[in-house]
Amino acid sequence: MVQYNIALIGFGGVNRALAQLVAERNEQWQAELGFRLNIVAVTDLDLGSVVSANGIDARMLVETKFERGGFAKLSGGSAEADNEKVIRHAPADIIAEATFTNPDDGEPAVSHCRWALESGKHVVTTNKGPAALAAAELKMLARRHHVAFEYEGAVMSGTPVIRMAKTTLAGACLTGFEGILNGTSNYVLGRMEAGLGFSAAVSEAQAMGYAEADPTADVEGYDVRLKVVILANELLGGALKPADVSCKGISSLTASDIEAAAKDGCRWKLIGSAYRNENGRIEASVAPRRLALDHPLAGVSGATNAISFRTDLLGAVTVTGPGAGRVETAYALLSDIIAIHRAEPAYTTKEAAE
Amino acid sequence: MVQYNIALIGFGGVNRALAQLVAERNEQWQAELGFRLNIVAVTDLDLGSVVSANGIDARMLVETKFERGGFAKLSGGSAEADNEKVIRHAPADIIAEATFTNPDDGEPAVSHCRWALESGKHVVTTNKGPAALAAAELKMLARRHHVAFEYEGAVMSGTPVIRMAKTTLAGACLTGFEGILNGTSNYVLGRMEAGLGFSAAVSEAQAMGYAEADPTADVEGYDVRLKVVILANELLGGALKPADVSCKGISSLTASDIEAAAKDGCRWKLIGSAYRNENGRIEASVAPRRLALDHPLAGVSGATNAISFRTDLLGAVTVTGPGAGRVETAYALLSDIIAIHRAEPAYTTKEAAE
Repeated sequence: MVQYNIALIGFGGVNRALAQLVAERNEQWQAELGFRLNIVAVTDLDLGSVVSANGIDARMLVETKFERGGFAKLSGGSAEADNEKVIRHAPADIIAEATFTNPDDGEPAVSHCRWALESGKHVVTTNKGPAALAAAELKMLARRHHVAFEYEGAVMSGTPVIRMAKTTLAGACLTGFEGILNGTSNYVLGRMEAGLGFSAAVSEAQAMGYAEADPTADVEGYDVRLKVVILANELLGGALKPADVSCKGISSLTASDIEAAAKDGCRWKLIGSAYRNENGRIEASVAPRRLALDHPLAGVSGATNAISFRTDLLGAVTVTGPGAGRVETAYALLSDIIAIHRAEPAYTTKEAAE
Repeated sequence: MVQYNIALIGFGGVNRALAQLVAERNEQWQAELGFRLNIVAVTDLDLGSVVSANGIDARMLVETKFERGGFAKLSGGSAEADNEKVIRHAPADIIAEATFTNPDDGEPAVSHCRWALESGKHVVTTNKGPAALAAAELKMLARRHHVAFEYEGAVMSGTPVIRMAKTTLAGACLTGFEGILNGTSNYVLGRMEAGLGFSAAVSEAQAMGYAEADPTADVEGYDVRLKVVILANELLGGALKPADVSCKGISSLTASDIEAAAKDGCRWKLIGSAYRNENGRIEASVAPRRLALDHPLAGVSGATNAISFRTDLLGAVTVTGPGAGRVETAYALLSDIIAIHRAEPAYTTKEAAE
């Protein structure tokens, strides 16, 4: 029986959903995927940290209502998060990093990833910060320590766009992509088409739980920009920083813009894209675009996300799926672990070859 | 340097496009994918067969205008196809089977695959016959001989739907799928929406080269039915035969059906689908369905294909891409070879372990 010991860094919606899946599906995973997960550590800024080499009961973790510092009551627990100590010293094979995204320098998540990789642990993360701002450094660190740094969930939650482009489209010669990569702004645009003004549509998105109290990152395109950086660097071999991507959001679109587009049989969408141009340079942008209704991305409605890959041998291949959601994003972590499991001989062989 | 010796069975559009890619891209593949291809044999009912252990110049193959039996003029050539002898005895690692699809018993392609697997050669094929009618037998044969039987191109040409579902959606718990899996019928429906009658739309599709002289397999759903069988058996663990799939085509749809749907904000699509029901049984069908315009498959227009996977953890994930085309289908063969190359340690290890 293969069992991976896993440490959960951040115990918000995503890692909590992963713990719930562990509680419910370990037996099924063992039969169908060939491994099970054993949670040996959890840290959370609010709740504290807990480490147990024998494993922490996943069901207890998700069913207990912990108060602030509440992990202190558990065996092996502390009211402090102790992230560095837990990440470096917990007996984990894999670190699941799901703390908040810091769009400026990626911290503290970048340090979390660095500590894990340095101590020979695989990292799976849904955090856009490390993936957008430090992927090159962290991938090099992972290679040096013969472990994986995987971040499928940083873009379109569990919809497997990164892995699809890298594995199932290998050899098709990807030349670029364009996508609807933010569900909140897509929802807002849909409501504006239905007649609401920008502010009213944002308020509704907030009431529905799609948009945060400060919707700036979603509606001004900053969230999409991080995702464009991640995809351009990972899939097109770029070395972009967010400042290299021109960025315009949807807040300046007016009801009459929306109407005028509809009259011409078009529809506004916030599109993040990157292409390798004739000189081999990557041109990347985030901007509202008027799409004809037969464009592959024009029909993507509500909070759904989609990405259209442009390839030399297949033309456009488009993937549409969820862009958010706790379970959907937790699945991204699982899919990263599945990829690590399937590549495991590669890691073991490399270590043995040293 | 890794080099795979490959034998092309059938030298029509698809294998000819693969030979063209070999002529143009071997150096690139070596650098980017880690292998090159060396064509050591070609057979064709019309042209004959040719075998050369040192390799046959791919550029010469695609640029020469061969007459009937023309391979006889080549060194190592014969005017006869000699399929069994070539498949069993040519020094090939991989057989690329791209002869015509026989929807009744899959022959002679099933025998081609059997001979190849029995003699320890990997099979990659775009042929729906073996994939729909003999996959269980051929997969068992492949396992016994520690080689691969891959058929990504049997559904949606090079759009990687089978490999996507099996690898990048692993663990998401696929419960079913529905798809637009025939470009010709989808094109005809689009033209009927534009005002043409069924017969006029079919004639136009024939003139455009989409539909064959006898369009029955496309418009009556038989082509889609084979693809539903392939996907249901491969992805849902079924053991379906074509007769298990109820099948209705689009030939009985009238202009007034199309109009009535449009009035209700709907659109007719020919949908192939399969689901595992509550009792664990697979229910599969091919039928025209009225889709609301916000259905993920409603916007798929022209000869494009799409499949919407229903999963437990992600909900619907939809892939849209080409469903036909010589280069697109040849890419499917390449993608199968890439998968074999990446799994190669597995094959080698198993053989060594015997």
